[in-house]
Amino acid sequence: MNNFTKEIMQKDKDHFMHPWTIFDVYKTDGALPIEKASGNYLEDTDGNRYLDAVGGLWCNNIGTGRKEMADTIAEQVIKMSYANPFVDMTNVPATLLAEKIAELAPGALNHVFYSCGGSTAVDTAYRLIQYYQNCRGKHAKKHIISRDMSYHGSTYAAMSIGGKKGDHPEEFDFIEDTIHHLTAPKHYGQHEDKSTAEFLEFLLNELEQKILTLGADNVAAFFAEPIMGAGGVIVPPAGYHKKTWEICKKHDVLYVSDEVVTGFGRLGHWFASEDVFDIQPDIIISAKGLTSGYLPLGATIFSDQIWDEISEDGHGRCFAHGFTYSGHPVACAAALKNIEIMEREQLLDNVTTLAPYFQEKLTTLADLPIVGDIRGHGFMWCVEFVANKETCELFPEEMDIGKQISNHADAKGLIVRPVVHLNVMSPPLTLNKTEIDFIVDTLRASIEATLIDLEDQGYQY
Amino acid sequence: MNNFTKEIMQKDKDHFMHPWTIFDVYKTDGALPIEKASGNYLEDTDGNRYLDAVGGLWCNNIGTGRKEMADTIAEQVIKMSYANPFVDMTNVPATLLAEKIAELAPGALNHVFYSCGGSTAVDTAYRLIQYYQNCRGKHAKKHIISRDMSYHGSTYAAMSIGGKKGDHPEEFDFIEDTIHHLTAPKHYGQHEDKSTAEFLEFLLNELEQKILTLGADNVAAFFAEPIMGAGGVIVPPAGYHKKTWEICKKHDVLYVSDEVVTGFGRLGHWFASEDVFDIQPDIIISAKGLTSGYLPLGATIFSDQIWDEISEDGHGRCFAHGFTYSGHPVACAAALKNIEIMEREQLLDNVTTLAPYFQEKLTTLADLPIVGDIRGHGFMWCVEFVANKETCELFPEEMDIGKQISNHADAKGLIVRPVVHLNVMSPPLTLNKTEIDFIVDTLRASIEATLIDLEDQGYQY
Repeated sequence: MNNFTKEIMQKDKDHFMHPWTIFDVYKTDGALPIEKASGNYLEDTDGNRYLDAVGGLWCNNIGTGRKEMADTIAEQVIKMSYANPFVDMTNVPATLLAEKIAELAPGALNHVFYSCGGSTAVDTAYRLIQYYQNCRGKHAKKHIISRDMSYHGSTYAAMSIGGKKGDHPEEFDFIEDTIHHLTAPKHYGQHEDKSTAEFLEFLLNELEQKILTLGADNVAAFFAEPIMGAGGVIVPPAGYHKKTWEICKKHDVLYVSDEVVTGFGRLGHWFASEDVFDIQPDIIISAKGLTSGYLPLGATIFSDQIWDEISEDGHGRCFAHGFTYSGHPVACAAALKNIEIMEREQLLDNVTTLAPYFQEKLTTLADLPIVGDIRGHGFMWCVEFVANKETCELFPEEMDIGKQISNHADAKGLIVRPVVHLNVMSPPLTLNKTEIDFIVDTLRASIEATLIDLEDQGYQY
Repeated sequence: MNNFTKEIMQKDKDHFMHPWTIFDVYKTDGALPIEKASGNYLEDTDGNRYLDAVGGLWCNNIGTGRKEMADTIAEQVIKMSYANPFVDMTNVPATLLAEKIAELAPGALNHVFYSCGGSTAVDTAYRLIQYYQNCRGKHAKKHIISRDMSYHGSTYAAMSIGGKKGDHPEEFDFIEDTIHHLTAPKHYGQHEDKSTAEFLEFLLNELEQKILTLGADNVAAFFAEPIMGAGGVIVPPAGYHKKTWEICKKHDVLYVSDEVVTGFGRLGHWFASEDVFDIQPDIIISAKGLTSGYLPLGATIFSDQIWDEISEDGHGRCFAHGFTYSGHPVACAAALKNIEIMEREQLLDNVTTLAPYFQEKLTTLADLPIVGDIRGHGFMWCVEFVANKETCELFPEEMDIGKQISNHADAKGLIVRPVVHLNVMSPPLTLNKTEIDFIVDTLRASIEATLIDLEDQGYQY
């Protein structure tokens, strides 16, 4: 470790509290300073290079450090580094991007409310839903239904909608009276006693019963990620989204599709809701891939029906909500260029073309004795590790098996994301076959190295 | 209006819902597209040029479109356009900025949690306060005290903390059971029956009584802007902050100073809490001037005491909160350069030097028959308009007198912010004497033009 690294690590400990800081560990070990990023690769302050199979944090879709992006951003900074978006002023990049998003989004989703990321886009959706239901005179429609293991961002409201147990430690408080979490659509290791069809039936019945128990007149909206991200790349049983969407329609419950991770190409489409899962949600949440993480931007995309209701003439209504940086011209210019690059380089096609190979290659890991499940879609994958493949028994949580494996991967120049029992991957859409090979080969070597560590700890394989 | 303007305005109406959209007006009039910004000036798509006396939205502190900022931002995009800040990874610009912020902030405020703007910085403070009080075992300390007319951002939690009546229309819902709003410290036009000393006494007594009524063990924190911004540049009576801070200390209530507007030079200091108002808050909220609006960034700056409590060894705690773009390297690099420019060009001194002239010049408007109050500090001012100077009687709200005057100002090349009965100014810190003259002279001409309109409507002056 060079002196600069030591200096940065000390300053970091002294002043920068990170998202999801684990205090005991951080105060002793500190954080690894990353200094450079180019394409699909990162470099730390000691000059170590890594293939970033996490794509930043599910966000680096076109690869980092592109000169074309730097030029576009610098030009917009010179032309107009900021413009006030409030009330009756607008700016050109934000308007053109709103038009482009409406073009890419499913059918009637033609209206965009901007913020700076997925959390504020979800928080905006939460407030927009209240506004919409109140405008309709449905003042009792306050309840939100979401799922266990879901992740919807980190404002107070967004975190309350999310259902990850690890994100609800006792030190935090949450909205509890009007937010309800249903069973996560995770078959593997949790509902093996049921067939896939029975499990699907169980999930659909649970949703409808919850709506009926609360009373449909009291239920405002259902929030769902098409494929759960941070909860562990949970792919629901086939038909789940279409059928839950139909149940919502039937009971006048808004369907919110959180596409922060799945949007902008990760599953090979601009949005997955319609193209992969055949639904037209009332609201789509977008962020991350929208700018490929170059600059912060979030979008709450909503339907004509919602717009028509809230903007109805003669009420003198004001939508008293928004952010200084809603529609930031530099972030919007970056998003427009990001989309142009995706189109020009046909990156969505690259995902569709390479996804079967990625899956096939990952599936070769199945022979390893602690690899329990391999699941995903497009360029969004995870490997779930188990202590016993027969029983799906997990390792004790405090062993942090995912982290043990990812530590080996780090040392071998590969970054994957450890999430308790999982290693998660969401690489840039520019990934090629050679890099897929490197990811899977390195993951195999890292799991094998961990097997040796496990044998030292008394496990037998 | 040229064709490009028409085209943008139509697309804007079709797809971009703005913060604080007034639907009836927007659907007919649309929004004015701004296309260029340079220094203290804006230009719309028709080539009309304006001096921007609002500084974007209280955020453009160093002036827009600086080449040095564009270069720094482009260089950071090339070097590393994104880095994952979660758990145990960090990046160099975010660490160095956290160190710099800690250096500029009062005494023990040495820890920074990043987000993308003031709203998320306030939402983070709200969650941090819950975390802190729960870590201390003070599980009943849930109540938040804030003030009428305050603005603290627009997430569900932040908007519930804010107390502006216009921001709490019946279509939105709010946290009500644990958030309490006290009287705004606005003497003019509202509490003229009391002397300043009596009014201060009333406010302090109200705060202490509220704490005692709720029970000090149930009160978590007090939120206050040093000078209220969007509520109408409300400067509290001398001694108000020091004494409210002492009451909070006495009752073990955290003091949160929302310096989103007042920080980074607007009052002539990096932060106003200590340098202007002689208090050391437990938490300072920062955004806007931190990057001068070039890129979205927010910071929740908190004390060693809070850090020590939440990070205490041996609990295995995780701070399960944060954002993909917490500590975004490009935004942090922009903030570091922004601060460097402020230091090199001594922009804080420019504020301190010119503020008395700005005030003196604005005070010349007092002879106009509808100018009721002129108040502010540093480069943060407002003019309050009244129908009757003797009684402080206001114009009917639906007349939107502030907007009538600002429309005249727009036509004369000056942008001020209309807020019902007010015109608000928060110009770039680079403003010079000639521009101050232009602002005040144009404001006078705009008020005079409005007086003629008012006479047409039957008012007599």
